[in-house]
Amino acid sequence: MGEKESNMVVNPYEVEGKVDYERLIKEFGLEKINEDILKKIKKIVGKEELHFMLRRGIFFAGRDLNWVLGEYEKGNKFFIYTGCGPSGPVHIGHLMTWYFTKWLQDKFDVELYFQFTDDEKFLYKDLSYEEIQKWTEENMLDVIAVGFNPKKTHFIIDTKHAGIMYPEAIKVAKKITFSTIKASFGFNESNNVGSIFYTAMQAVPAFLPSILKKKKIPCLIPHAVDQDPHFRITRDILPKLGYYKPASIQCSFLPPLTGSEGKMSSSESVKGILSTDSPAEVKNKINKYAFSGGRDTIEEHRKLGGNTEVDVSFQYLRHFFEEDDKKLAQIEKDYKSGKLSTGELKKYTIEKINKFLGEHQERRKKAKTLISQYILKT
Amino acid sequence: MGEKESNMVVNPYEVEGKVDYERLIKEFGLEKINEDILKKIKKIVGKEELHFMLRRGIFFAGRDLNWVLGEYEKGNKFFIYTGCGPSGPVHIGHLMTWYFTKWLQDKFDVELYFQFTDDEKFLYKDLSYEEIQKWTEENMLDVIAVGFNPKKTHFIIDTKHAGIMYPEAIKVAKKITFSTIKASFGFNESNNVGSIFYTAMQAVPAFLPSILKKKKIPCLIPHAVDQDPHFRITRDILPKLGYYKPASIQCSFLPPLTGSEGKMSSSESVKGILSTDSPAEVKNKINKYAFSGGRDTIEEHRKLGGNTEVDVSFQYLRHFFEEDDKKLAQIEKDYKSGKLSTGELKKYTIEKINKFLGEHQERRKKAKTLISQYILKT
Repeated sequence: MGEKESNMVVNPYEVEGKVDYERLIKEFGLEKINEDILKKIKKIVGKEELHFMLRRGIFFAGRDLNWVLGEYEKGNKFFIYTGCGPSGPVHIGHLMTWYFTKWLQDKFDVELYFQFTDDEKFLYKDLSYEEIQKWTEENMLDVIAVGFNPKKTHFIIDTKHAGIMYPEAIKVAKKITFSTIKASFGFNESNNVGSIFYTAMQAVPAFLPSILKKKKIPCLIPHAVDQDPHFRITRDILPKLGYYKPASIQCSFLPPLTGSEGKMSSSESVKGILSTDSPAEVKNKINKYAFSGGRDTIEEHRKLGGNTEVDVSFQYLRHFFEEDDKKLAQIEKDYKSGKLSTGELKKYTIEKINKFLGEHQERRKKAKTLISQYILKT
Repeated sequence: MGEKESNMVVNPYEVEGKVDYERLIKEFGLEKINEDILKKIKKIVGKEELHFMLRRGIFFAGRDLNWVLGEYEKGNKFFIYTGCGPSGPVHIGHLMTWYFTKWLQDKFDVELYFQFTDDEKFLYKDLSYEEIQKWTEENMLDVIAVGFNPKKTHFIIDTKHAGIMYPEAIKVAKKITFSTIKASFGFNESNNVGSIFYTAMQAVPAFLPSILKKKKIPCLIPHAVDQDPHFRITRDILPKLGYYKPASIQCSFLPPLTGSEGKMSSSESVKGILSTDSPAEVKNKINKYAFSGGRDTIEEHRKLGGNTEVDVSFQYLRHFFEEDDKKLAQIEKDYKSGKLSTGELKKYTIEKINKFLGEHQERRKKAKTLISQYILKT
């Protein structure tokens, strides 16, 4: 294992270095999504194709998936819990997870609890309370634009729902020591006491529906793999409080524009592609920043071909914007052979992203009046 | 400074050893209540006598008392904030502070915010959430029995008011590191993360009224000196959030039955005298446990006299149950001279306590139906 790999850091508050997913599976103790699990999902969703993010292993690992699917088959439906940390604009990395979540909600026909961790972001970021509230409102528009079923989707905003969240969070917090937090998140004594407490708030939506519905309900959490430390703690504690351990289905990161290390973020200097970017902005970002797996000259490229593994445009297509496997395979083949140039690949990627975002933005425009329908009633 | 003194520990979670109040004033950086402050209070309360707990230095120190009284004189009234940790029955040590607080409320004609820190007690004690809720209900009866003006008194129950408390607490928590908590409360990495966060919740009532009334209002906190570490932190932070530093007026501890070290507590093996004790229970506790400053034999006592400094019965009279200075002076003189025996002193103390508790219990019986009047409306 090279030095670079050893420097990999993956936790909710830091993603550094080249991410080695096989190593994460081992270190976090995740279950890799195998053919058995895919078959089980396919059996439930019926004639439908599996979502391409499953077919391609973008969602690559999980916890207790066999169990949660088994319960579903027995008629013990799970609910979905996922969320958003509102400290800046939504980028396509967020959207990737949320659109997959919508697929889960639709195919399994289940309730979704969507948490906005405004307390977390206030506690961790150098932003005012008001700024965080503004981002919460903005981010809600994007979540609504994804098209979740408003009848089965419930927004939890940590500060607004503190009346029900905090009394439950302290039951979790009582069972977590600072040692555990230190080890899980790489904290030290200079961390603020709100941030040290916070993971207890993130645990609550994993069992809140069981309280609201007065029966134990299985929980499935789709999330990017960096959030796993939160839910490892949650899983340790929930059985002690009389609830199921939440199951999870975890995805790899959409690479940042500049290359394959770390993850896309809206707080880096080169921002990711945002949900609100205009076609011109997307074009400019991809053309200017998207790391290319192509060769230095077009002659060389035609002769030797490009590297799709590191090519950001190709990876965006694979992760999110090209649903059609055959089309993707053709692009891969052509790029590797040199038939498809970087310019052509970027052009196609820009078109795909812009088509997608155009539709998202149309729905986003109409989202504001829908917010109140989505907020969890207590 | 003897070894015993060096072993003194005074913080909200531990009171150990013989408490040296002069040393606490220095170590905590408190202002001793001097003649000037007493004169200032006397000027405001008018013809009335000062409360005996002020005359006798039971309330012996504070912070910013000159300032808060000065503001009051200028027409900028303070509100009072005090509270109760509901983990067991109320004892006369609690009542002492609360009856003084009632005097403050009446004489200064001000609003009182009374916090029930049910989250704190749940997080620190080996008691279930339900047990803590039961104690909260029980303790509310005692607070109401004190006779606070229901029109000007507002109960804050941390878990029930979490909807307004938590969003403010995180603003405080963002400015407190674990290092500060460690140093202030003697914590370590094995403390649970709820307890580490908690002081932020205790800070909130010191500025919540300023939010509710939409103007900066001075705050005066009457409390036993062991709570000072919480409010030192609160005082550091509130100006950064745009509020006044809370002022405080602090009392010494009512000694435990068994002697003069530590403080009265309802979780020790020899319980203190409880608000609900029957006359027979009070009689038994005083006769059986109240440490005596008298001599081994009555003959010796008549000849050499007793020690009022260490005599628990005398101290209860001085702290709380004998309002009349002349009467107290006579008792002191007679006990020191040997004229008054321990048996006689105990008998008198039992009568005084039972008269007091009898009236308290009468009011307590009628308190249940009044609870809803006292709960802070939000």
